[in-house]
Amino acid sequence: MQVNILAGGPRQQYPENLFNQKAGWIGVDRGALILIKNHIRPQLAVGDFDSMTVQELVEVKKNCSEIIQVNPVKDDTDTELALASAFEQLHADEVHLYGATGGRLDHLLSNIFMLLKPKFNQYVEQVKIIDRQNCIYFFNAGQHCINVLPDYKYLSFVSLGKVENLTLPDEKYQLHNQSDQLPVAYVSNEFLKSTASFSFSSGTVAVIYSHDAN
Amino acid sequence: MQVNILAGGPRQQYPENLFNQKAGWIGVDRGALILIKNHIRPQLAVGDFDSMTVQELVEVKKNCSEIIQVNPVKDDTDTELALASAFEQLHADEVHLYGATGGRLDHLLSNIFMLLKPKFNQYVEQVKIIDRQNCIYFFNAGQHCINVLPDYKYLSFVSLGKVENLTLPDEKYQLHNQSDQLPVAYVSNEFLKSTASFSFSSGTVAVIYSHDAN
Repeated sequence: MQVNILAGGPRQQYPENLFNQKAGWIGVDRGALILIKNHIRPQLAVGDFDSMTVQELVEVKKNCSEIIQVNPVKDDTDTELALASAFEQLHADEVHLYGATGGRLDHLLSNIFMLLKPKFNQYVEQVKIIDRQNCIYFFNAGQHCINVLPDYKYLSFVSLGKVENLTLPDEKYQLHNQSDQLPVAYVSNEFLKSTASFSFSSGTVAVIYSHDAN
Repeated sequence: MQVNILAGGPRQQYPENLFNQKAGWIGVDRGALILIKNHIRPQLAVGDFDSMTVQELVEVKKNCSEIIQVNPVKDDTDTELALASAFEQLHADEVHLYGATGGRLDHLLSNIFMLLKPKFNQYVEQVKIIDRQNCIYFFNAGQHCINVLPDYKYLSFVSLGKVENLTLPDEKYQLHNQSDQLPVAYVSNEFLKSTASFSFSSGTVAVIYSHDAN
């Protein structure tokens, strides 16, 4: 089952037709309210809801199947709690995370780096972060093959920390057994055919499909 | 001397009054054209200028003191070349990088992670990435003290790769000798007084001042 999560990032970054999807939804804080305003009843709303008015919170409580209202002083971010709930409570096999980009860059980096934490890293290949210009897939060590996505020209490989023997054998710009101790972004690569393969022997890599602004 | 760089990210992310600054400017690709349209004559324009019309390129050539036109197939990004030029050619002692966020996330991550490369890491504490909601400072190991910036509520510490003994002794949420092997974002911290101190014994940390959208 696919579960979509809407975090609190700015609406300008939403992909088109975001709310037409049939999957179940989790709303993170104001994301829950935005789902409701777009005629979606979230399966779950997670957040401290600090920035909502009383009326808005009533609206959320009335229109969500379940609410997890957390203390604002906590170690996990609201989005981390939503992601954990998607896998552990709703038994998602794929999670699409929207509203996770744009706006505050600390939130954006947290939304990417949370996938390196042991409790999420096991699910990393089941999570995609999607916005108007980007689709991020995540991979752990191994041999992988990905498909062209229509409308995305660029393909970038970003090692999130130590990555060994990254090999891009059939992309426009090749790489062979590249090992890095620190994060590196290999950007603006491209597919040469309908698929691209790549491999690495340790670490986690983000693969970013992107296109220029319309 | 302060040098400002304008990269090609979307204009919605520009801070207000961006073009009122007195510092010298480098334009990265279309950034050069945008500077010219805002009545600034860049000291340097860097890029492959592939996406410009002939007329636009003529405009850039007429209005920049110097142009570095690079082959589109290259190992360094245009922004990396601009940053190297700021330090090596213009002898900047501080660089403010604008237009480096929003839009393509591969570009954004590249703009952050480039500062880990040995040739830039020596300058890391002299570089700030600034947009409408965020101001990112970078630090290498040591003992540091930073000041409150008006209008920025949140203070986040992001270890960019392996960081040892990160200690936040006088912030709202404290941390003591935290060591991480992989990137981690410690978000939504806050100043308790007009300064905040922190220290770590190895690695590079991004400190992100941010505020919610207006």
